[in-house]
Amino acid sequence: MSTTTPTSASRGLEDVVAGTSSICYIDGKKGILAYRGIDIHDLAEVSTFEEVTYLLWHGKLPSRKELADFTLQSVRERKLDAQIISYLRQVPKHAIPMDVIRTMVSALSFFDPEEAVNTKEANYNKSLRLFSQVGMIVASYDRIRKGLPLIEPDRSLNYAGNFLLMLNGKRPSETAIRALDTSLILTADHEWNASTFAARVTAATLSDMHSAITSGIGALKGPLHGGANEAVMKLLNVIEESGADPVEYVKGMVAQKVKIPGFGHRVYTTEDPRATHLRQMSRDLGYSSGHPKWYENSKAIEEWVNKEKKLNANVDFYSASVYHMLGIDVDLFTPLFVMSRTSGWTAHVMEQLSDNRLIRPRAEYIGPTVPQKYVPLDQRK
Amino acid sequence: MSTTTPTSASRGLEDVVAGTSSICYIDGKKGILAYRGIDIHDLAEVSTFEEVTYLLWHGKLPSRKELADFTLQSVRERKLDAQIISYLRQVPKHAIPMDVIRTMVSALSFFDPEEAVNTKEANYNKSLRLFSQVGMIVASYDRIRKGLPLIEPDRSLNYAGNFLLMLNGKRPSETAIRALDTSLILTADHEWNASTFAARVTAATLSDMHSAITSGIGALKGPLHGGANEAVMKLLNVIEESGADPVEYVKGMVAQKVKIPGFGHRVYTTEDPRATHLRQMSRDLGYSSGHPKWYENSKAIEEWVNKEKKLNANVDFYSASVYHMLGIDVDLFTPLFVMSRTSGWTAHVMEQLSDNRLIRPRAEYIGPTVPQKYVPLDQRK
Repeated sequence: MSTTTPTSASRGLEDVVAGTSSICYIDGKKGILAYRGIDIHDLAEVSTFEEVTYLLWHGKLPSRKELADFTLQSVRERKLDAQIISYLRQVPKHAIPMDVIRTMVSALSFFDPEEAVNTKEANYNKSLRLFSQVGMIVASYDRIRKGLPLIEPDRSLNYAGNFLLMLNGKRPSETAIRALDTSLILTADHEWNASTFAARVTAATLSDMHSAITSGIGALKGPLHGGANEAVMKLLNVIEESGADPVEYVKGMVAQKVKIPGFGHRVYTTEDPRATHLRQMSRDLGYSSGHPKWYENSKAIEEWVNKEKKLNANVDFYSASVYHMLGIDVDLFTPLFVMSRTSGWTAHVMEQLSDNRLIRPRAEYIGPTVPQKYVPLDQRK
Repeated sequence: MSTTTPTSASRGLEDVVAGTSSICYIDGKKGILAYRGIDIHDLAEVSTFEEVTYLLWHGKLPSRKELADFTLQSVRERKLDAQIISYLRQVPKHAIPMDVIRTMVSALSFFDPEEAVNTKEANYNKSLRLFSQVGMIVASYDRIRKGLPLIEPDRSLNYAGNFLLMLNGKRPSETAIRALDTSLILTADHEWNASTFAARVTAATLSDMHSAITSGIGALKGPLHGGANEAVMKLLNVIEESGADPVEYVKGMVAQKVKIPGFGHRVYTTEDPRATHLRQMSRDLGYSSGHPKWYENSKAIEEWVNKEKKLNANVDFYSASVYHMLGIDVDLFTPLFVMSRTSGWTAHVMEQLSDNRLIRPRAEYIGPTVPQKYVPLDQRK
C-alpha cells in the first residue's frame, strides 16, 4: 500500500493515508482483499454473512457458541417500531429509494433504547440493531410501495434468506439464499472507501452511530460509489430491449465518449477479487434458471472492454445481473449495498471510537486575497 | 496555513491539505477568518445573514438588486410540505433534537421538485430551499414538542427575525434580531471543519445535496464539533443553580481532570475571531436585559482559564450565553448551528461539484498478517 503523501493538496486524498485500521486489507496491485487478515476468496466460498459480520466486529472468527449467540441476538433484533412502518406508508410514491432508506435509518435513532449513550457496549448493540433492521426497512418499503402486505420476519432463516422472504413473500431457494449471502460477504467492507470514510468523519466528532451510518448511506447513494451497478443493469436492460449486439452497443458508447459503468477501480489495477465470485454467481444463476442471457451479454461486454480499453470489471459489473436474477428491482441495488456495508460501516465506527481523533483536514485557500474591502451596499456596482 | 503533510498516517488529517477551496480563509496564528476574502469582523459588524449567504454562494457581495432578488427567492421558499409537519408530530417525545433535524432534512428530499436532478442550477435551488426551510423545521419542531400552535412564516421579516417569531410566537426586538443575525454570520462557515468535510465527502460520490447536508448535520451533532456550546450552557446552569463561585467551580473541574468546554481550537492558536463578537454580544444582551450574570460568570471563567491554562475561548464559549438570553432552549443550540452552517455546507457542496473528484483516502493497515488461515467452524477453539 502506498504511503505517499503530497506536499500540496492531493485531489480527493488519492493515495493519502488518513489513519490506521486493522479491519480490511487491500493490495490493489495484486488484487488481494482480506477482512481481518482472511482472504475474501476463502470467506466467499465457505463463510456466511453472519460469521463475516462477527469477524469484522470482533476481529476474529467466532467459536460455535459465539456464532450461535450472535445469531440469536441478531434475530431477536428483527423488529421494526410501528412508527417506522407508519413513516414508510407516508412516503410519497415518487421518492428515491436511497432517500427513503437514509431517512428511515436516521429515524431509527428515535426508537433506539440507547440513543443517548455513546459507550462501547451501546454502540455494539446499536450495530446489531442496525444490522438486523436495515434489511427489514428495505423489504418493507418495497412491499408498501407495491401495495403488497408486509411479511413477518422468520427467525429460522439466516439474514439472506429472511430478507428474500420479506421482500418477495415466498420462501427462497437454497441457491438464491447462498447467492445473496455470498454477495453480502463480498460487499461487507472495503477499507476506507468514500462512504466508510464519511461514516468515520461523522463518528469522529463523537456524534453517534445512527448519524455515522446515515452519512455512509448518503455517500453510498452517489453513482461514483454505490450507484454503479444500477447503471450496469440499465445498460443491460437497454441492450436486451433494443435487441442490440452488446459489443456493438458499448462500442457505440465509447465512440460517443460515454463511460461504460462497472469497469475500473481507483484501488485495483488488477481484477477486483470480488468480481471473480460475482461473475461465477452470475453464470451459475443464469444457467440454472435457464436465462443465461444476462450473464452472456455481461461476459461479452467484459471481454471487449478488457481487450480494447484495458479496464477490468469491478464489483458492480456482475452484481447487476446477479441481483436482477434474484428478483431484486434495479432501484433496490444500492439499498442492498447499504445492507451489506452496514456491517463494515459499524465495524469502522467502533474502531474509530476505540481510539478517536477528530477528522478535520485543511484546505489550500485559492480565493480572493485577504483582506478584501467590504464595499457598502449603496457603493456596489 | 500549514501545508505540511506527513509521510505516514496523520491522525485525524491534522494539518493535511485535503483539497483547494476559495470560500473561507483562516489564519489560525493571526486569528484571521474571512469569507471570500472579506474579514469576518467587517461582516459581523455591518452585513446580514442573507448577504453573507449570497457572498458564500456567489463569491461576491450582491448588488442592491441581486440582494433584493435573493431575499425574495428565499422568502418564497419559506414553506414546509404538510407531510414534514405530520412526520414531526409523530416524533416521540424523548427524541434527541439533532436526530430529529437530521431525519427531517433527509425527508425534505422526498418533496424537493428537483431531487432527481444534480445540475448546478438544481443544486442552487435546493440550497435556497434548505436555507429557507431548515429554520422552519427547528422552530416547528420546538413548538410541536411543547404543544404550542405553529406560527406562520412572516415574509416581511429577515431570516433571523422570522425564525425568532416562528420559535417564540411573538415579534422579536430589533436587538434580538441583530444578535441572532450576527451569530448566524459568525458561524456560517469555517473552511473544512468536520461537518463540512463530511458533506463534501458525501457530495463527491455525486450523491445529492440532501445527502450531503444530512451528513453535515450528523457530524455537527458530536460534542467535539457542534455540541460544545450545549456543554458550556450546562456548566453555566450548574454554577447558577448551585450558587458556586464560577472560578472555584472550574478549578475543581481541572483538579478532577475534567475538560472545560468552550476553550481551545485545533486551528486557532490566538483568540478565535468569532469569540470577540460573541463576547461583546453576550455582554450587551446581559446588561440590556438586566441579567448580566451569564456574561459575568462566563467572563470570570474565561479569564481564569486564559491565565491558568493558556487556552482561549472559542466560538462555543460565548454563544452559549447569547443563545440562552435569546430564549433558545439549550438542546436547540446545535440545531441553530445547523441553520447557520447550512449556508456554508451548501456553498462547499456546490464548490465540490464544480470540479469534482471522489474523496477516497487509504488506511494504513495494522491488522493481522495477510493471509490468515480460515479455520473451519468445528476446528475453532
